[in-house]
This record gives sequence, structure tokens and C-alpha cells, in this order.
Amino acid sequence: MHVHAFIEEMERLAPPDLAEEYDAGKIGLVVEGRQEISRVCCALDATPYVVKQAIRASADMLVVHHTPLWTPVTSITGRIAGLMRDLLSADMNLYVMHTNFDRAQEGVNDALAELLSLTGVSSMSIGCIGSCGLSPAEISQKLGGNCRLWGTVKKIRTLALVGGGGFDPILLEEAQARGADAFLSAEMKHSVARSAPLPCIEATHYALEAPAMQRLSLRRGWQYINDPPLLKILP
Amino acid sequence: MHVHAFIEEMERLAPPDLAEEYDAGKIGLVVEGRQEISRVCCALDATPYVVKQAIRASADMLVVHHTPLWTPVTSITGRIAGLMRDLLSADMNLYVMHTNFDRAQEGVNDALAELLSLTGVSSMSIGCIGSCGLSPAEISQKLGGNCRLWGTVKKIRTLALVGGGGFDPILLEEAQARGADAFLSAEMKHSVARSAPLPCIEATHYALEAPAMQRLSLRRGWQYINDPPLLKILP
Amino acid sequence: MHVHAFIEEMERLAPPDLAEEYDAGKIGLVVEGRQEISRVCCALDATPYVVKQAIRASADMLVVHHTPLWTPVTSITGRIAGLMRDLLSADMNLYVMHTNFDRAQEGVNDALAELLSLTGVSSMSIGCIGSCGLSPAEISQKLGGNCRLWGTVKKIRTLALVGGGGFDPILLEEAQARGADAFLSAEMKHSVARSAPLPCIEATHYALEAPAMQRLSLRRGWQYINDPPLLKILP
Amino acid sequence: MHVHAFIEEMERLAPPDLAEEYDAGKIGLVVEGRQEISRVCCALDATPYVVKQAIRASADMLVVHHTPLWTPVTSITGRIAGLMRDLLSADMNLYVMHTNFDRAQEGVNDALAELLSLTGVSSMSIGCIGSCGLSPAEISQKLGGNCRLWGTVKKIRTLALVGGGGFDPILLEEAQARGADAFLSAEMKHSVARSAPLPCIEATHYALEAPAMQRLSLRRGWQYINDPPLLKILP
Amino acid sequence: MHVHAFIEEMERLAPPDLAEEYDAGKIGLVVEGRQEISRVCCALDATPYVVKQAIRASADMLVVHHTPLWTPVTSITGRIAGLMRDLLSADMNLYVMHTNFDRAQEGVNDALAELLSLTGVSSMSIGCIGSCGLSPAEISQKLGGNCRLWGTVKKIRTLALVGGGGFDPILLEEAQARGADAFLSAEMKHSVARSAPLPCIEATHYALEAPAMQRLSLRRGWQYINDPPLLKILP
Amino acid sequence: MHVHAFIEEMERLAPPDLAEEYDAGKIGLVVEGRQEISRVCCALDATPYVVKQAIRASADMLVVHHTPLWTPVTSITGRIAGLMRDLLSADMNLYVMHTNFDRAQEGVNDALAELLSLTGVSSMSIGCIGSCGLSPAEISQKLGGNCRLWGTVKKIRTLALVGGGGFDPILLEEAQARGADAFLSAEMKHSVARSAPLPCIEATHYALEAPAMQRLSLRRGWQYINDPPLLKILP
Repeated sequence: MHVHAFIEEMERLAPPDLAEEYDAGKIGLVVEGRQEISRVCCALDATPYVVKQAIRASADMLVVHHTPLWTPVTSITGRIAGLMRDLLSADMNLYVMHTNFDRAQEGVNDALAELLSLTGVSSMSIGCIGSCGLSPAEISQKLGGNCRLWGTVKKIRTLALVGGGGFDPILLEEAQARGADAFLSAEMKHSVARSAPLPCIEATHYALEAPAMQRLSLRRGWQYINDPPLLKILP
Repeated sequence: MHVHAFIEEMERLAPPDLAEEYDAGKIGLVVEGRQEISRVCCALDATPYVVKQAIRASADMLVVHHTPLWTPVTSITGRIAGLMRDLLSADMNLYVMHTNFDRAQEGVNDALAELLSLTGVSSMSIGCIGSCGLSPAEISQKLGGNCRLWGTVKKIRTLALVGGGGFDPILLEEAQARGADAFLSAEMKHSVARSAPLPCIEATHYALEAPAMQRLSLRRGWQYINDPPLLKILP
Repeated sequence: MHVHAFIEEMERLAPPDLAEEYDAGKIGLVVEGRQEISRVCCALDATPYVVKQAIRASADMLVVHHTPLWTPVTSITGRIAGLMRDLLSADMNLYVMHTNFDRAQEGVNDALAELLSLTGVSSMSIGCIGSCGLSPAEISQKLGGNCRLWGTVKKIRTLALVGGGGFDPILLEEAQARGADAFLSAEMKHSVARSAPLPCIEATHYALEAPAMQRLSLRRGWQYINDPPLLKILP
Repeated sequence: MHVHAFIEEMERLAPPDLAEEYDAGKIGLVVEGRQEISRVCCALDATPYVVKQAIRASADMLVVHHTPLWTPVTSITGRIAGLMRDLLSADMNLYVMHTNFDRAQEGVNDALAELLSLTGVSSMSIGCIGSCGLSPAEISQKLGGNCRLWGTVKKIRTLALVGGGGFDPILLEEAQARGADAFLSAEMKHSVARSAPLPCIEATHYALEAPAMQRLSLRRGWQYINDPPLLKILP
Repeated sequence: MHVHAFIEEMERLAPPDLAEEYDAGKIGLVVEGRQEISRVCCALDATPYVVKQAIRASADMLVVHHTPLWTPVTSITGRIAGLMRDLLSADMNLYVMHTNFDRAQEGVNDALAELLSLTGVSSMSIGCIGSCGLSPAEISQKLGGNCRLWGTVKKIRTLALVGGGGFDPILLEEAQARGADAFLSAEMKHSVARSAPLPCIEATHYALEAPAMQRLSLRRGWQYINDPPLLKILP
Repeated sequence: MHVHAFIEEMERLAPPDLAEEYDAGKIGLVVEGRQEISRVCCALDATPYVVKQAIRASADMLVVHHTPLWTPVTSITGRIAGLMRDLLSADMNLYVMHTNFDRAQEGVNDALAELLSLTGVSSMSIGCIGSCGLSPAEISQKLGGNCRLWGTVKKIRTLALVGGGGFDPILLEEAQARGADAFLSAEMKHSVARSAPLPCIEATHYALEAPAMQRLSLRRGWQYINDPPLLKILP
């Protein structure tokens, strides 16, 4: 498949118009390689390990959620130089779907809601909300364990969730107003926790967003490359 | 003691000039109450619980690390109205020491270094670095447990630390360049963890900053009001 | 009446959408007190005197034209602390209608036009214009006297007026283009007077805006608290 | 005298470095005419009347306090075209001394202090303060009458003054802190009057600033052209 | 003809709405003279020579493409004072049509396309594109000679052109995408030439824009004043 | 030589502190390759041709004047992808000296002054000025011919010059004030030419800046890669 045709397919899947304004220029084809695409790898981040695995798999295209070129650059040095050398030497393409995929049907939040078997799901201004039959501990289990619970909650009948770092005071208020018993996201800040109007379950960013990339790979017949951050709870 | 004299003492302790520019107008006497100060309470945050306890203790002054008026306001409603009603009706003063206390001698980072028995401590552009005889698990224990370790490290000979949310890529590089084996702070973000050049120990914001307020209370004969966030690791 | 119902009524009277953009966050419920509203006081400004009178009258709500929290604050000290202590301790609400009330039907400019018995009144981009049967001295009399006349005019057939400080060169030109013989407002500046294309009558801000608050109080059965600035012409 | 020599003299009198930053490009030689200067006229403003009188007097140079080109222009039309046509056709120079003359020795505030016979005069951040033996009514008389007194004051032992529109809350506080019994300036605003910490005497901008231009003309042997705004108190 | 009627005619010819945003306040009647217009001169720039010739021709109005007051001014000195003195003393009007005339029908780019006998002309986002039967040397000849060719091209079947300084990378890409064999404009920059995707013919700004003013003068019965910059190729 | 040692040498030659502020992040090591530097190539621009020649020459380092990453990027596609692929695959370093080299001793302007045999050379705020024994045509010859002369000048006793695009009105005035008979630079704009206070000689950017890179290569024993833009005067 020509790279243009591949891009068109991806844009149907996760329309660029859905992206936040701050993603302008940071999604789509972020590194340009060869034009013929037959083998595709997929991951959450373009880490050095992920890129090397994709090269080993002879991929023509690597699809990720987070661009490695977030801050605009006027030089290619250090970690970025290593990454770009690997990608460009292998003539591999790098394609990014970020907040457009968060919001897409079958995207990040949809995949998360499915993983947690939410029902009656509807959108929030970011993320979604639905009926839930799980306890906090069961949610943690589904996400690989070691989540943190801020506040106390036993029974979660209604769960609001935002894949990625979504503990924003305005979103928390929206969730509460819509009857959520708890809010699931990543990267809690002290100042937000102090005034949170409802209990919060904090997972890792990776645990919340990887499922969507994995499910996408499965459906498309791509190879998913798993590379979670090394994280351990100390006693 | 007159409130002016009290403020002068506090400014010797944590000179306002040490504060970050973004703290302008957000430290010092943030709520003005009666002029005669005899009883002082102290806490990390001016939570509703903390304010009520201070009133119960008949305090004239409450000293905290985080201002409740961070975002400039043109109305006093909701949570802020409740807090201000309690403080102003009781004629209580509220005094804030923030980044000036982080950097002060005997301040937040100093107290933390002492708690962890660091030796040969020297300043970084934010936070400090010193020799450490503890394992990650022992550090976690000293901080109340349940820290998170990003990456792997067994023996920490040199530890860099920043009280509060200090996992900043530039600080991490500074720590690495100065030979740190690990970096202790709070509020890790996924994007920072992905490119961290050294292992990171993540405690809560509260666990890192409360010790300094507690030690200050002890030394001054104030009443410390403990109000940690409710936080639990899920299996 | 519940405070929400009261707010709804006020918003019908002076729809927030009519306000200038700079009023964002500075109109509506500016200090939140008790929820049940039975007694309402009204004034032009929330001066210390006005607030004390409203407390003496056991008001649940004080309605004013000018917010006391115009500049966003990160501390509650000095004059503002005194005002907020009085309001919050008494659990009184403070509600502000500003440029939305200037523009409202039956609002500031309407009340002024009525006071001066203008006929055939129509709106300007700010303020209004109408037929007038009064001399400058008669206008001054209706406004409590001691107005100042910039330029010379005997007979005013058409009068343009803007409640508050409205001597803006663009408004003066609009008034002249629409055939005004004089322009009535407050707070004349030297540079504007020097190039004014038509004679100007300068009243006090208070004299121009208080009538609308007074009329509103009368119609609603509220208690109006009069507190004009102390002002005297020196020989 | 060559125009360059004239400018040098003026810059000794009112050094451009003393000017506020907002005067950049708006003081000095604002309209360039002939190079030989023998006859000089002076006024507060370059009004059409003033310019015509200066032409009638065959002046080579007109010195004023307020530039007629305050707002930067990209076209010369209307009132400005008339003024520029008169000046340029007559080959007359126009020289402006503004905030640099306010602050100069023998400048605007100095002349005002002298007119009111202040003693022990010292500078404020803007304007000056000194001992005064006059009542408010006597001050008004010295300034041509019809001043306005905001608040009440009988005996003024210490007077703060700012030529031009200087009723700024920060200046008022400075004056109060330095023991002023009253503050003299022009162009009072309602919001400032409402929270003024001391009584204020409001003269016209012209009455406060013209004396300095008059005195300068007298000392230099220039012709002063008087053109006060037409202003009348209505009963 | 009254000047208002003249302006209306000009605005039909080159509607102000067509102008770029940066032309706001810099087109239309830029210097206001007498109201009755019978004799009109026209030129590309309001140079001192052009203004003097227009005065010699007793013109009431001078129409030009480039305003002499591009940068907003707060003083009238030096070169601008000379120009304004000549115009205002002679009571002459100065009218500017800039990017609105570039884009107008029968405007700058239209006149250029006609001069080069382009056929099948259509608009680009700026400038136009059409079929061309000329070699680069023939184009240069039509424009008075001494053009510069960047890159190599023999036969130009399709030519893109932008009157004035239009070698913008985005325009060059648009031209290439629409099949242009060469791009004609003025004021080539090194950085643009280095990455130009098609050959470029560089004429002078004057040679590209004067034809439209000349043709306009001819059609309107105005006197065109020719004043090209002195320019010579050195061996 | 290790790349760090090479960079130190270059920084002695053209200290980064000399650079304009807009060069921040755009000079120095712009693409990072291998660490051991033995073979160095040099050119004015990192064009595709230059990079390919440097690879053919097995260079470890390419030194240029103009960075190919001027505009900050968040993607590596198109022309930039090709360039980066070539550089990174070959593990070649790219080092940029821009306005710091313009100003350096033995830098761009020095080399140009030497090429034209100027004597008594002194710095201007940008560029330099000196005594000259050449006619315009002789200057053109020394720069490869085909310069353009704006205005007329026969004998140039004093020449001001700025390598690169330096026809700035303020620089032209500075040159005139210092007695220059002509100003040599590149990229003349129509608006600047129209009000230029002295005759101007316009060479190409390349002709003015390449000599310094060539001379540097000669002195250092590097290989200079010549790649002038294709440019031809049309009759």
C-alpha cells in the first residue's frame, strides 16, 4: 500500500480534526520514510527499544500515540539524534495519532471503557462516563494492578474516565455533576487531589492508553510492541 | 506579638526574595486577621479541616506552605467562600511560605535531607543532593511507605531530591551530571519518566513537604495540624 | 426565594450576555452567602458604609453596580479584608450588575433618559440619544447640581448621554454625527475635551448611575442605601 | 540660533531621560520646520488657535507640553491635517516637553509648588510634597477657582501634588504614608475617589500645568499663548 | 468632482475589502487636501520628484501604490516633513491603492498578465498563473530588461507571477503544484532561492507594478509620472 | 580529534556570545554524528549537493554558515527528511556558525573587507567600513561580476559593507553618517532603495559570504565545497 493510502486510512480511523489545537503539526506523518508500506508495527511511545524492535521486524511503518518530537527542534542531537538515525537509516515511517485517537470512535477512551466493561457509555468534554460493575480493586486488577485510590469509595456504580493525564478540576466537576462515583485517570497532582469533589483512581498513563494501541494492532493485523515503564511499589 | 513583628520573623526564616517569580503576591500575609498574635497553628495546606482545627485551637495565625488563593479571583464563592468565611469570621491570619521556604536554610529541602540523614549536602538549582546510606525501600519507609520506584536501582550512594513536584527533565539532567544514583520527588509524568536519565523515587507531595512544616512547628512551639490526603495502593 | 431563583430573575433583568467582555467573571454572584433570600438591599457601590447598613437591615442580599473585586486578588487584606469579613460573617450575598445593566432595558441609561424626560430615545453603540427640552442648567439641577459645562451651548434640542465615564472620542463623534447638541457623561479628560466636536456636560459618575439603582429598588421593594461621594465646589 | 542649538538648550532644561517610557518618540522635535530660530512661542497644547496665533506672531518655533501626535498615525487627515498644514506651510517647528518637563527642576510640579508657596518640598515617585499654609479654598483661588474638593479637610499642613491627571491609588497611598493632609491633581475617577485614603482637591489639567509653561516663557523671553478650555460650573 | 465621489469611484475600482490585513489604515485617503478634484496625477511611489511634478501639473489629487506613511509616526521630520510640507502646502490629496489594487480586476497582476500576453489566466492565493508563449529573455525584454534568472528554464509554457515582492516558499509550492514552469516576481532572498522548487525570474518591483498604474492613468485620462529607481548591472 | 575538542576550537574562532539573539539554538552542533573527527568539509549552505559531496569525501564533520533547520520542526519530512537521512546515516556532524561568524575576527565581514583590499577598517553596528580604492565595476569583478548598482557613484573612497542581506535603513544611515560613499550588501528591497541616503551595490548573498568560508577552509586544511546558486542576467 502506498503511504498516502495508508495515511488516508488512518485519517478515517482518527480524523485530525478531532485533535486538540496544541497537537497541530505534531500528529500524522512525523518522520517520512519509504513510500511502500507492507509491514506495520505499533506501540504507545517511540522509545529506542520500540524503534529497534520495529526495525528487527522489518517494518515500513511505526504507528504510535506519543510523538517523540513534541517540543519543536532546531537541532537533532542526543536522544533524538539516536532515534532519528535509527528511523531514517531504516527508511521507516513514523505516524502519530494522539488526541484525535483519544476522541475517535474505537479510540483510547472507547478501548478503556470496553476493557472495564462499562455500559451506557457517553462522552464527556474529554473522556467518557458509564455504568460500572467493578470495585476499585477490580479496576486496578484489569489495569495490571498497583493503582492508587485517592479518597474512599466502595461501590462504583458510575465511573468517569480519561485516558492519559486527565485529573483536571473542570473535568472532575463535570464528572461529579453527571453523577460519577469515581474518576479514573493518570498523573494526579497534589493541588488537584486536595480539592477533588469525588474519589479518584490513579493508574499509570501507560496502563490507560496501551490497551487501545493493542486492540488496534489486533484488528489491523499489525505487530504490537509492548514497552511499559519499569515501575514498582516500595513497601 | 504584633502581626508585623511576626511577619518580620517569618521573613528572616524564609526571605521572600528567595521565592520563584510565579509566587509574587501569593506568599506572605494572604488573609489579614487580628493584629495581636499569641497562638499559632501550622499545616501544609489550608484545607477546611485544618482551618476548623486552628479555630478550635483559638489560633490567631495559621502558617501554611500552599496558598488557597493560587488562581487570582474576582469572586468569593463555593469552596473559597467557605474557607474565607471561617478564617475572616474568626479574625484569623493566614501566612504562606512557599518556594521561599523550599529554598530557605532549614526549609523544605533541608528538612527532607535531614529526615533521610543525607550527608555532604549541597544545593542544586532547585532542591539538593547528598550522600545517602539508604536503599529505595528504606527511603520509602522514612516517608511513610508506598513510594514508587521508576527504573531500577539497588544501592543509592548519592541522592538528589526536590520537595514537591520536581521531576523536571532539566533537573534530572543536572542530578545525573552531578553523579546522583537516584532522584526523589513527587508527581511523575509519563513523558518525563520515558526519558529520565536516572532512576526516580516518587513519593507523595505531602510526604516530602510536611516534614519541614512539622519540624518548624516543633522548633517554634506552634501546633502542627496533620491532614495528609487519603491514599491507598490497590492490589 | 432561593438564591438560584433570585439570580435567574436578575439575569432576566440584566442579561449577562449584554456585558462588555472586560466584565467577564466580575458580574453576577460575587460573594456567596446564605441560600434563602428574603430581604434585599441595593446601592451603587459596596462601600464599607453600604455594607454595614445592609447588615443593620438584616439583608440576605446586596445588589450593586460596581464590584469591589475589580482587580483579581490572591490575598484578602486591608480594605478588602474588612469588606469581606463584614459580608461573609453576616452570610450576606453580593450581586453585581454592571455593563449588562447599563445596556439593559430599564437599565442605567434608560433610567437617566427618563429622569431627564428625553423623548424619541434610541441607542448609541454605548449610551443613548434623544430629544431634550432642557437647558444645561436644568440638566444639572435634575442631577443634583454642580455639573460642569465644557464648551458653550444654550439650547439642547438633542442630547446624547452615557451613564458612567463615557467621554470617549469615538462616542463623541458618533453623537455629533447623529445630530446631538451636547453630550452628557462623567470623568472628562483634558485630552478629550481639547478635541471634543460638541459641547459636553460633565456630571459625577454617581449622579448618572445612582438613579437606575434607586428606581430598581423602588420597583422591586428593596431598600436603597444612598452613599454619594462627598464633593464640594470650591470658590 | 540654529534649531540644533535650541534643542540642546531644551534638553538641558528638560532632559529626555527623565521622561516616562510611554513618551518615547513623542517628545522633542515633533514637527520639523526652518533651521534658524529667532522667535519662539509657547503654550500648553498645540490647539488650532495656538498655532494660528504663533503664525501671526511670526514664530519659528512653538514649544508645547502635549504633542498633537499622541496616537501614531499612518494618515494625515481631518483635524491633524489642518494643524500640520498650518505648521508646515509656515515652516514652523513644534517642540514637545512632556513627562520630562513634569519632572525637571523648574518644571511642571516645581512651578506648581512655587505658585502655592509650598516649603520644604521633596519629590514623590511622581509629583511632590511640601508644607502648605493654605486652605482648600485658597488653593482653588490660586488656580483660578472652581476646584472640586473630594472628602473634607479644613487645614492643610502638608500637601501632595501631581500636575496633570495624577489621582492614582498608588500615589495616593504614597502621599498618605508621607503625611499629606490632601492631594491636589486633575481628572478624578469615581473608582479612585471611592477608596481614596485622604481628601483630594481636583483642579483642571490646564490650571495645574499652564503655570509652568507661562513661567518658562517669562524667563526665556518667549511669547506665551493662553488658551484655557471653556469650562463653567452649572448651578 | 468632490473628493468623496472620487473616493467612491476608486473604491469600486479597488475595493478596500480586498486588501491584506496589514494594509489597515494605510490605504485610501492618506493625506487630505482640497475637496474639489479636477486634475489627477498617478505614480507608483510618492517620491519627492513625483510630488513636485504633480504640483507643477497643478494636480488636486495624486494616486499611488505605496504609501509614504507605512510605519506609524508620532513626529513629522526629515524626509517625511519635506513630503508632507509639499503636499499640504499645495492642498493636494494623496490616495493609496495597495494590496486591494494588486487583487482587483484590472489591477496590478492583471496588468502584468496582459503585458506578458498570458492566456487562460486564473488566480493564485496571491498573484496569478497562465499560459505563456515567451522565453525568459523575452519576458525580461517586456519588463525593460536586466531581469535575473534563478535556475534554468528554456521554454515557459505556464508562468506564475506575483507583482511586487512575492517569492514566498508557500506561493512557490502552490505555483509548482499548479504546473508552473517558472515564477516571476521581485526581491529574491538567498534562503528562498536555495529551496525553490521551480526556476524563478526576478524583475524589479518597479518593473512589475508600474504597468498597472500606467494603464490606469491611460484609461482614466490622468497624468502618469514615471520615476523608476536608478539601477545598473555592473560587469 | 574528539567532537568536543573540535567544538571548543570553533567556539574560540566564532564565540557563540557574538551571535544575534535570533540565532539562539540555531548555531553550534546542529546534527550530532560520530565523536571522532578527522576529516572536515565546509560550505556556505547544507544543500543536498553539499551533503552528498561531503559524504563522498568521507567527512566526519560539515561546517556551514546557514542552518538547514531555521524554522523549528515537529516533523522530519520532505526536503529535510532527505537531508537528515543522508547526514545521520553517514554519522556525519553538522556544525553551524552564523551571526557569530559574521562578527568574528577573521569572520564574514573581515574576509570580505580583505577580498576588497579595504584599509583602515572599523566596525559598524553590523558589518564594517573602510577606505577603498575600487570603482563599482571593480568591486563587482572581485565578487564574480553581475552586481547591481542602485543610484550613481563614480569614485568610492569609503565603502560600508554588510555580508548577507544587510540593506537596512538604520544601517544605511549609520554608513552615511560615517562618510561612506557607497554601501555593499545583498537582497535590496524596493522600499529601502527608494529612500536610501547613499548609493548601494547589491551582490548576491553567496558572493558576499562564501569568501569567508573558503578562506577558513584554506587556513584549516578543510575541503571547501562550492555550490553557488545558478543565476544569470537576462538581456
